Amino acid sequence: MSSVIDGKAVAAAVLEECRSEVAELKARGITPGLSVVLVGDDPASHVYVGSKVRTCGDLGIYSRKIVLPAETTQEELLAVVHELNADPAIHGILVQSPPPKHIDEEAIIRALDPRKDVDGFHPENVAKLVLEDKTGFVPCTPAGSMRLLAAAGIKTAGAEAVVIGRSMIVGKPMALLLMAKGSDATVTVAHSRSKDLPAICRRADIVVAAVGRPEMVKADWVKEGAVVIDVGINRIDDATKKSGYRLVGDVAYDEVAPKCTAITPVPGGVGPMTIAMLMKNTLQAARQLG
Amino acid sequence: MSSVIDGKAVAAAVLEECRSEVAELKARGITPGLSVVLVGDDPASHVYVGSKVRTCGDLGIYSRKIVLPAETTQEELLAVVHELNADPAIHGILVQSPPPKHIDEEAIIRALDPRKDVDGFHPENVAKLVLEDKTGFVPCTPAGSMRLLAAAGIKTAGAEAVVIGRSMIVGKPMALLLMAKGSDATVTVAHSRSKDLPAICRRADIVVAAVGRPEMVKADWVKEGAVVIDVGINRIDDATKKSGYRLVGDVAYDEVAPKCTAITPVPGGVGPMTIAMLMKNTLQAARQLG
Repeated sequence: MSSVIDGKAVAAAVLEECRSEVAELKARGITPGLSVVLVGDDPASHVYVGSKVRTCGDLGIYSRKIVLPAETTQEELLAVVHELNADPAIHGILVQSPPPKHIDEEAIIRALDPRKDVDGFHPENVAKLVLEDKTGFVPCTPAGSMRLLAAAGIKTAGAEAVVIGRSMIVGKPMALLLMAKGSDATVTVAHSRSKDLPAICRRADIVVAAVGRPEMVKADWVKEGAVVIDVGINRIDDATKKSGYRLVGDVAYDEVAPKCTAITPVPGGVGPMTIAMLMKNTLQAARQLG
Repeated sequence: MSSVIDGKAVAAAVLEECRSEVAELKARGITPGLSVVLVGDDPASHVYVGSKVRTCGDLGIYSRKIVLPAETTQEELLAVVHELNADPAIHGILVQSPPPKHIDEEAIIRALDPRKDVDGFHPENVAKLVLEDKTGFVPCTPAGSMRLLAAAGIKTAGAEAVVIGRSMIVGKPMALLLMAKGSDATVTVAHSRSKDLPAICRRADIVVAAVGRPEMVKADWVKEGAVVIDVGINRIDDATKKSGYRLVGDVAYDEVAPKCTAITPVPGGVGPMTIAMLMKNTLQAARQLG
C-alpha cells in the first residue's frame, strides 16, 4: 500500500536542476566552484569526498580537493580556510567531518566565510535558519529531507510532524524547517529523554527519525497512513553479506512500511539527497556571491 | 487548587541576585554598564526605557539613556551603536523596539557587538541558543519564563511542553530552551496554522502561550494539572476602568486557573521578569567582557 520515496530518483532530478543552473551561471561568466578539505586518512571520509568531487565534475562545477596530512595543525588548517575564503574561484567550502581529534572543528567552522559555508553549520547560517532568512544555507540532510517530502507531494501545512532527535545537524534544523512559514507544520521534537516515545510518535502525520539507533521505530510507533522519513544510516551485523554487515535506518522498515502512506528506504532514501543538496547550496553560493 | 506563580516576587529575587553580582563585579573593579537607545517619542517605549534605567540605578549598574529624535537617520543610529560598541564603560546595549519605520531594525541589531547584545537578538546569539552555547544571551522574555518554571519547582525533563506561537522573540527561543539538554522537555510548537489547537494544547504538561490574542486559551484547552505560562499582554476594553481598558494575557485566566497546578497571572507574571533578565544579561556581559 505504501509508496516508497525514491531518494535516488529525487536526487537525480535535483542534480538535473543543478545542471541547468550551472549552464545559466556559466552563461553569465560564473563557474561555480567548491573546495572540499579533508584532513587525515579516514577511509569513509575519502569515499564521501570522492563522490562529492565526482558529482561536481559531472555537473560542470569546478572542484578543488585539498587533502592534508593527519598531523596538520589547527593553524595550518585555518590558513587553508582563510585562503579559500579569499579565493574568488571558490564559492563553497566544506571541511569534511570528522577532522582528527586535535582539531577544534567548531573554530574551523566559525572561520569559514559564512557566504561560502555550504554545509550550513556556521552560526550565521544557523541563525538565518531560525530567522527564516532564505539567503542562508540549510544543512544538506534536513534540506534533502524537506525536498523528499515535497517531491512525494506531502503537504506539511497543519500536519503533525514528530522529529525524533535534537541534534544540531539534523533534528533541530529539520524542526525549524517544518515549523517555518510556508511549511507550517505543528512540530514536536522528541528525544532520548522523552517519556513514551512510541505514543508521541503515533500522533505524527510525518515522522522524521534522526537518532542513529538501528530500527528503533517499530510498527506500533507509527499511525496508519503516516509518512516516514528515515534519516538514520546504521551498520548492523549480517553474516549473509560478504561485507559482514548491512545498512539499516532508524526505522524497522519491513514492519513499518506497510502502515505508511510513504516512506524512505535505507539506503536509497535521504542518503542520496545529501550530495544533491550540497550541489544546490554551492550554486546558491555562486549566485549570491555573483 | 492552583498555585499562582508570582512574577513580581521571582523578579525581585532575581534582582537581589543581581545586586550581589554587582557588588562582586565592583569588588573586581568592574562597574557594569547598560546603554539604552531610544529613537523617537513613542510614549510606551519611554515608559519601558524609564523603568530599565531606574532598575539599573537601584542595582548600582551604570546606565546611559540616549534619546534620539524620530528623524534620526539609519547612519546616525549606526554611528551611535558603533560608539557604544567601542566604549569600555558599556557592557550591554539595547535599542528600544520598535524604532521609527524608516529605520532598518535588523541592520541595527546586526551592527551591535554580539558580546553586548543583551536583548539576545543578534544572529550570533540566536545561533548560540540553537547550539546550546551558554556564553550567548537568551532573549529576556523566554529566559524569564524558564526562570518562572524553575522558581515554581516545575520539572521540565520528560514533560510535554506546548509552545503556542513561533515568533523569533518568544516562541522559537522558548521551544529551543525547553528542548535543550538539561531542560529535556518534549516540545511541540503550535501556531495559527496548526489544526485543532485545543487538542494539541490539551496534551501539554506545560503550556506556554505567546500569540498575542486576548484570552485565546480556554479551560477546555488545558489538561487538569497542567502548568501555564502566559506570555501575552493584551489590552482589552473595560468600561469599569478609569483608563477604559485592562490588561489580559493569551489565557482566559479565570476559567483556566482552577485546572492548573501553577499559572502565571497577567499582569504580574512573565512581565516583571523581562527587566530582571535584562539586568542578568547585562551582568553576564560585564563578566564576559571582564
